[in-house]
Amino acid sequence: VNAPSIVDRSAPEGVQAWAAQVRDGDVRALARAITAIENQQPQAEALLEQLFPSTGKAFLIGVTGAPGTGKSTLVDRLAGAYRSMDRSVGIIAVDPTSPYTGGAVLGDRIRMQNHSGDAGVFIRSMATRGFLGGLARATADVALLLDAAGKQVVILETVGVGQDEVDIVRLADCTLVLMVPGLGDDVQSMKAGLMEVADIFVLNKAERDGADRLQQQIEAMLELAPGRRGWTTPVVRTTATEGAGVAQLIDTIEQFRMREELAADRRSRMVGHWKQRLRTLLGEHLIDRTVAKAGGEGALEALAGDVAERRVNPYTAVREIAARAGI
Amino acid sequence: VNAPSIVDRSAPEGVQAWAAQVRDGDVRALARAITAIENQQPQAEALLEQLFPSTGKAFLIGVTGAPGTGKSTLVDRLAGAYRSMDRSVGIIAVDPTSPYTGGAVLGDRIRMQNHSGDAGVFIRSMATRGFLGGLARATADVALLLDAAGKQVVILETVGVGQDEVDIVRLADCTLVLMVPGLGDDVQSMKAGLMEVADIFVLNKAERDGADRLQQQIEAMLELAPGRRGWTTPVVRTTATEGAGVAQLIDTIEQFRMREELAADRRSRMVGHWKQRLRTLLGEHLIDRTVAKAGGEGALEALAGDVAERRVNPYTAVREIAARAGI
Repeated sequence: VNAPSIVDRSAPEGVQAWAAQVRDGDVRALARAITAIENQQPQAEALLEQLFPSTGKAFLIGVTGAPGTGKSTLVDRLAGAYRSMDRSVGIIAVDPTSPYTGGAVLGDRIRMQNHSGDAGVFIRSMATRGFLGGLARATADVALLLDAAGKQVVILETVGVGQDEVDIVRLADCTLVLMVPGLGDDVQSMKAGLMEVADIFVLNKAERDGADRLQQQIEAMLELAPGRRGWTTPVVRTTATEGAGVAQLIDTIEQFRMREELAADRRSRMVGHWKQRLRTLLGEHLIDRTVAKAGGEGALEALAGDVAERRVNPYTAVREIAARAGI
Repeated sequence: VNAPSIVDRSAPEGVQAWAAQVRDGDVRALARAITAIENQQPQAEALLEQLFPSTGKAFLIGVTGAPGTGKSTLVDRLAGAYRSMDRSVGIIAVDPTSPYTGGAVLGDRIRMQNHSGDAGVFIRSMATRGFLGGLARATADVALLLDAAGKQVVILETVGVGQDEVDIVRLADCTLVLMVPGLGDDVQSMKAGLMEVADIFVLNKAERDGADRLQQQIEAMLELAPGRRGWTTPVVRTTATEGAGVAQLIDTIEQFRMREELAADRRSRMVGHWKQRLRTLLGEHLIDRTVAKAGGEGALEALAGDVAERRVNPYTAVREIAARAGI
């Protein structure tokens, strides 16, 4: 069943107008485009195709950390700081710790108040379930949209749990990993995953007891495993609730950005990213065409029934579909 | 780079011997097979193909709930109860709340002690990152392995957060959703997602204050949205640390199982599951063949470079690859 389309795929002039609105930063057009991506509406691809040449300019900052580390507060502070530097900001908040709530929407409203009336900040929360094509992909597409809409800084906020979220963080040009004293985070136990993604450690709630000890632990860990890409991963202390340390954090991000732009790292990272994306898109493109050639959804369902009843194994079934489609 | 293979794909007799060991419930063969699935080693598919006809007999129980609801303790109790009924048990523990720790392995060791020396219980923790093919798929494959190894009951334990975990729970024949009094769970806020997956609500830590109120809230919610598949979703109270209520929970699961086996529900659910799996497997099969036909990884990388530099958009690039491969 097709969902009612805002723009018919056969009417590219509609998509062109929509794309022009997104490029102009029209908030309603942007919100409608995100919904189209979330629901994998057919016109989402046509729209992204239109907008793609306008992308590649935004600087993507990933912000990750366990629940309770103060991510949202820090992101709000960063957004405010970038706004005072007259840079437009987009925020994509991915919070899988509340997948069952309507909290994403409510959260947007509450947070919007800080930046209300400021057309330079666009905030969108992404739910973590119900994405047909995967959360990481939807987030990457929304980041492209915000990029096309002229947002100079796009902040991706995730709780840093699970494969989807790690994939999201890998999108970022610069990734901040938040830690706080006294949350029971054992630095030792965090090594494996966080070392790979952290470009900057943010020691938030730095006024708390145990901040010095945590910083020593992080630095000891960093000595054992030097920062990726030749960058010496720094530890920046903040108290986000009061804005303390945020200016220094912005400076550090800018230092990373400068270094990064000089290096060939970004290009090779983006090539790797697109190689993976092309494979995924290719798979979708081929699956639909192949299933159609091999007898359509009905034939697929019949084969699935054979597999469910163990009359055929799934690998043989797949080769059968490909053979029927002549591939 | 190919990882050293335990069994060469061109040596199906090796895979056959391995499959026979798994069918016999050999713990080392099983552990090696899980590792092969986790790392997507080529022989994993050949092995699963061998084992597939021996699957479809296990009863899959999903156990999900927020951190702190006592899932692991309850799962241990359920495993013990099924063992006392002389049923063999497999446990797959998926815990994305500690993705960066070596805790999975350590946890196994600690939990194994309860069942040590009992070859009837096999416990495996799955990390939540680094899965090339997605966590939900790897978990489904491991469930097939345990099924083929003759485990009559397979328990899938997840923290119930994120898309991957919801997909995992959808695999289960019967899903238990754990809630505890006083954890700050607002029943209202949980409605959307949990109502869909819960076959049985387990009110754990039932000795705590607030248990009656929580039960009333759950029941009020259930009145508004009656259980799926015509089943009246029950609330069972347990104190897993002491084993209280576990016998009643097992009875309730058996009631659900009896009802379920009478209905056509299971078949249609499994057909839906396999339809989705076939699409995913088909995509992988087609991507590799198509990329090879279209000039190989080098050609793909060159196109990814063009996309990264915005010389071509990703959708055009995908059509280009398919066209080059003559599809």
